[in-house]
Amino acid sequence: MTRNIYDQEDFFAGYSRLPRSVQGLDGAAEWPAMRALLPAMTGRRVLDLGCGFGWFARWARREGAASVLAIDVSAKMLARAAEMTNDPAITYARGDLEMLDVPAAAFDLAYSSLAFHYVANLEHTFPVIRRALTPGAPFVFSVEHPLYTAPSAPGFVTAVDGRRVWPLDRYLDEGERKTDWLATGVIKRHRTIGTYVRLLLGAGFTLTHLEEWGPTDAQIAQHPEWAVERDRPPFMLVAARSS
Amino acid sequence: MTRNIYDQEDFFAGYSRLPRSVQGLDGAAEWPAMRALLPAMTGRRVLDLGCGFGWFARWARREGAASVLAIDVSAKMLARAAEMTNDPAITYARGDLEMLDVPAAAFDLAYSSLAFHYVANLEHTFPVIRRALTPGAPFVFSVEHPLYTAPSAPGFVTAVDGRRVWPLDRYLDEGERKTDWLATGVIKRHRTIGTYVRLLLGAGFTLTHLEEWGPTDAQIAQHPEWAVERDRPPFMLVAARSS
Repeated sequence: MTRNIYDQEDFFAGYSRLPRSVQGLDGAAEWPAMRALLPAMTGRRVLDLGCGFGWFARWARREGAASVLAIDVSAKMLARAAEMTNDPAITYARGDLEMLDVPAAAFDLAYSSLAFHYVANLEHTFPVIRRALTPGAPFVFSVEHPLYTAPSAPGFVTAVDGRRVWPLDRYLDEGERKTDWLATGVIKRHRTIGTYVRLLLGAGFTLTHLEEWGPTDAQIAQHPEWAVERDRPPFMLVAARSS
Repeated sequence: MTRNIYDQEDFFAGYSRLPRSVQGLDGAAEWPAMRALLPAMTGRRVLDLGCGFGWFARWARREGAASVLAIDVSAKMLARAAEMTNDPAITYARGDLEMLDVPAAAFDLAYSSLAFHYVANLEHTFPVIRRALTPGAPFVFSVEHPLYTAPSAPGFVTAVDGRRVWPLDRYLDEGERKTDWLATGVIKRHRTIGTYVRLLLGAGFTLTHLEEWGPTDAQIAQHPEWAVERDRPPFMLVAARSS
């Protein structure tokens, strides 16, 4: 089972204070780029994997989605998500993406934001998502960029010549990474871009977009401290369709 | 025009001494992985882009390819390639991949090894390759990995804590990079993995494989000094098909 860090008090408290938790989708710097990958929501049956506080599920409904099945491993996040809506067309369900089990051909869009880098067994998860989708339906997801998850010590450092650099190592060494982010000993699963692509194609998806996200010039003008993210992209955004 | 570094005396002399120049394909560590991406050669009309000394063209013919059009920008390399064969089914032609111009629907395979990271205008090149291929034909290529081309100073460094790391910066800042490799001031074109994928899909290719190449355990056992390449993959191998 995925270690459920989100239900750990210190992590949950820290996560709850992030802009993306307080402001929702507009508090997530990569949301405009994610949104650009999404089809029109009207009438779609949406599968939302790692739904967190449910911001995306509620947005999808406001945009006309027929229904949303929103799954998360965290009881605390689901409880808060449930408090924020009484929409009967959104179903919040507790579930572990490692052992995802959803009906076949029942969804017209699968969506996941920043969840899969906690999941060890995408070899199971991606084919289940593929079967859950109707033919040609899109699958749009984001993960922490593999450049972000790879290093032994993931933080910018100063090189001998005084330049600030991202200390890349272990990029091809896939598997567990322990980091301290909001809490100590958070476990992520590092995999390469090549592996994400292989798992997608192997599950029967056609790749339609792969984006190594960094802040735009306009975002950097507003948040100069984000410029560093262009040295090492923090997120990867992927779109595919079932084929 | 692509700056033709290969015809510069010091670069050509250095390049000619590399294992891959002396031993051919078997002197290239990534060749087994590239070969695994190739279809059977029998009867194929092959387009070889950046053919160098012609090792691949001659291999393709030995494997049964019907013909090979092998293009390179370097007169010196083509002259040496021509010395190594009198096969009338191999045509060596001088050409700049920036301005590639080849017949439509005339080839059953396009191949390129470590050439495109010197080409600035793949926005032109990839669609020409797409049109040159018959429907469904494969396109297999390698480039220096974007992690290799990105940094201001591309060489491993020692971090303050004593770890050896690859000093990544400027990953999302695409464009020219000047490096000293075999000669001073060699100009490469850095682009992200996301951009390679976007250019491929935009040209009408379907992606079938993306591999961030590093040495295998068996290769490291033979060449322990290669282990460092697993911290930062040196090559990216891509397979696609015209669609």
